[in-house]
Amino acid sequence: MISSAKARRESGLFVAEGRRICSEADLKLLKEVFISEEFQADASFETDRVFCVKEEVFSSMTDTKTPQGILMVLTQPVYPKEGFFRKGGLYLFLETLQDPGNLGTIFRTAEAAGAAGIVMNRECADLFSPKTIRSTMGSIFRLPFLVTEDLLAAMREAKAAGIRLFAGDLSGTKEYTEADYSGGTGFLIGNEGNGLSEEAKKEAENRIRIPLEGRVDSLNAGIAAAVLLFEAKRQRGNV
Amino acid sequence: MISSAKARRESGLFVAEGRRICSEADLKLLKEVFISEEFQADASFETDRVFCVKEEVFSSMTDTKTPQGILMVLTQPVYPKEGFFRKGGLYLFLETLQDPGNLGTIFRTAEAAGAAGIVMNRECADLFSPKTIRSTMGSIFRLPFLVTEDLLAAMREAKAAGIRLFAGDLSGTKEYTEADYSGGTGFLIGNEGNGLSEEAKKEAENRIRIPLEGRVDSLNAGIAAAVLLFEAKRQRGNV
Repeated sequence: MISSAKARRESGLFVAEGRRICSEADLKLLKEVFISEEFQADASFETDRVFCVKEEVFSSMTDTKTPQGILMVLTQPVYPKEGFFRKGGLYLFLETLQDPGNLGTIFRTAEAAGAAGIVMNRECADLFSPKTIRSTMGSIFRLPFLVTEDLLAAMREAKAAGIRLFAGDLSGTKEYTEADYSGGTGFLIGNEGNGLSEEAKKEAENRIRIPLEGRVDSLNAGIAAAVLLFEAKRQRGNV
Repeated sequence: MISSAKARRESGLFVAEGRRICSEADLKLLKEVFISEEFQADASFETDRVFCVKEEVFSSMTDTKTPQGILMVLTQPVYPKEGFFRKGGLYLFLETLQDPGNLGTIFRTAEAAGAAGIVMNRECADLFSPKTIRSTMGSIFRLPFLVTEDLLAAMREAKAAGIRLFAGDLSGTKEYTEADYSGGTGFLIGNEGNGLSEEAKKEAENRIRIPLEGRVDSLNAGIAAAVLLFEAKRQRGNV
């Protein structure tokens, strides 16, 4: 029913599976809850939109190998573009990020680092795929995000709101610990294989380099995001 | 042939697949190279242990969906326990880490942060699974490691060599940026679901906390390792 990215896009719905993520779901978004007969024994819900199905039926509804007996159909959260960029906020801009697990982990990490939001272009992996949703560990319900057709326009809007944009650049001379992230800050994170586009790099006015030892020529995109976000958090004195 | 963890353990061999990882392979470990007929056209090797096979045969040998036409069978590198812990070195201790991709990414990140080695218990995911090997992006050939039956004994050996051990502790009062990692340092990273065992925590004499915003109650294990390693690198003035 909503097991493809296309179906999710067209319906504006998505599925959250498993006890942990369902317990964190924003119930304002809830359409339906499906539970297996086995699960039903120890469950109680303050909604009448609960459907109990046989184990085999439940198994056929999920893509996990060991289903936990609960899944929710939810409306995808949508955040208004207006006012998305707050003064002094910490943001990520993701360009064409392909790995679903990476994308979800980035949401989790960004919330943990105190980020105010994430902007991603349409070419990123589907934010609402089951794997991504699981990897967010619930952050999908709490961290504001925009999925945009035009990442460069969103970057310009951020700059107009006083957010300074930083792009990773392996050949840059300024190391990431030398830049100042105490004010509004946006980090650009590029595609796993190809990095950032030249256009996106150009739109960001600041270049920073994460120095790498050994013979490593790049970090995993999620790791790079974490290193930058937690350096910003450290500088901001939240740690 | 060596497609199970058991077979890899018993044979002491493993497989590296794809152009990138094969180009980084330590040729001292090389047993055999298999290439597809299509790949052969643009390849040259300074070894006589190259076997060219038909596309269908090659496909049956790999677990990747879009095989790149090259795989190597290699001897698993083994590092001597004696002298593993060097004065002033930066180390990771991994306890029962389960995610193969996480494990590989941790190797890549650790090399990038200038770590001297990784110690892991036998209960960790198989370091030589194809997914883990790919995720290391070649660091598996460069970063020394120990797989041990007794992680606590290895921790004691590290301490005897002057390495200070730090365990993450969510309830701790000391934040990770307040500790001093300028000398020999070892970070403990625990299981994705359950964290560190009480025994391992007890063996480490120092507790640190990565403060988390929002409603996040833990970081992904690979992300936590990255945040700690790069804070150590920052303090050590390598950045």
